[in-house]
Amino acid sequence: MTIADDLKASVRAIRDYPKPGIIFRDITTLLGDARAFRRAVDQLVQPWAGSKIDKVAGIEARGFILGGAVAHQVSAGFVPIRKKGKLPHTTVRIAYSLEYGLDEMEMHADAVKPGERVILIDDLIATGGTAEGAVKLLRQIGAEVVAACFIIDLPDLGGAAKLRAMDVPVRTLMEFDGH
Amino acid sequence: MTIADDLKASVRAIRDYPKPGIIFRDITTLLGDARAFRRAVDQLVQPWAGSKIDKVAGIEARGFILGGAVAHQVSAGFVPIRKKGKLPHTTVRIAYSLEYGLDEMEMHADAVKPGERVILIDDLIATGGTAEGAVKLLRQIGAEVVAACFIIDLPDLGGAAKLRAMDVPVRTLMEFDGH
Repeated sequence: MTIADDLKASVRAIRDYPKPGIIFRDITTLLGDARAFRRAVDQLVQPWAGSKIDKVAGIEARGFILGGAVAHQVSAGFVPIRKKGKLPHTTVRIAYSLEYGLDEMEMHADAVKPGERVILIDDLIATGGTAEGAVKLLRQIGAEVVAACFIIDLPDLGGAAKLRAMDVPVRTLMEFDGH
Repeated sequence: MTIADDLKASVRAIRDYPKPGIIFRDITTLLGDARAFRRAVDQLVQPWAGSKIDKVAGIEARGFILGGAVAHQVSAGFVPIRKKGKLPHTTVRIAYSLEYGLDEMEMHADAVKPGERVILIDDLIATGGTAEGAVKLLRQIGAEVVAACFIIDLPDLGGAAKLRAMDVPVRTLMEFDGH
């Protein structure tokens, strides 16, 4: 097996979750496997291994696990992007589209200094609504979004293409069909 | 300044949050400072640097950020302990006490194999209700809880003492008075 196949095999498929007809891609089995977790973190940021990264921004909640590890790997600070109402200091906020309706996410307004180079991290990109909102928030406070990195891409849902159309380099480690 | 003072200075105090009279200890400023974040991760697990750790368990949500980084640091797998209803596979669940009433937390039943050595991570220990629940869940599925590590201890609230009474070694990096 290639490294990609090996990593892909460590993701658990859960049928009919959260509802009939959906196959949920469960990365907890990958995270729980020390070797797979380390490989995924290494691979996610491999293209930027030589460049200076100031901050790694992770999207709540699974993006916190990966983002914490990636920030440690590249010796950067970590910036949490959270659901509204969870951050204690002055925030910037943006609405983003979910499968059903809208929600809002926030970041501390002073979490990134203008011009700082930031990598955005989440576990999976589907329609890209959350990641698009996160990129807009980061740019609003002056960040240079160097890349957006995800373990899983569901390319049928167009999220990675949406980010690339915003001039954000996208890195993903494996693809699955459909939803 | 000692390392501890330096780290302590990187935690932001937010007065009257989430309600009047409370000083909230905001660790996002520590996490966002690459040097402080790396030091905190190193210091948290320094006593277990030479021993084999199979898994690092992090408590949602801030414990995910630190836990992801610590798992990377010690080359262990990561296990998420989540609020109920968020994990897709078969779980074990426990009720725990919050300041006002009860809530429940869950872990995948197969997240840790019997006998595996686990370090529990969260950002802060106050009354210890959440950490106590997490230790019980881990032990229920056969984990050996090697240590519980927190950046901040509020010793007046007794959480660290509660864990030590359960024979869990506790590691904290700084203390603040009161709540």
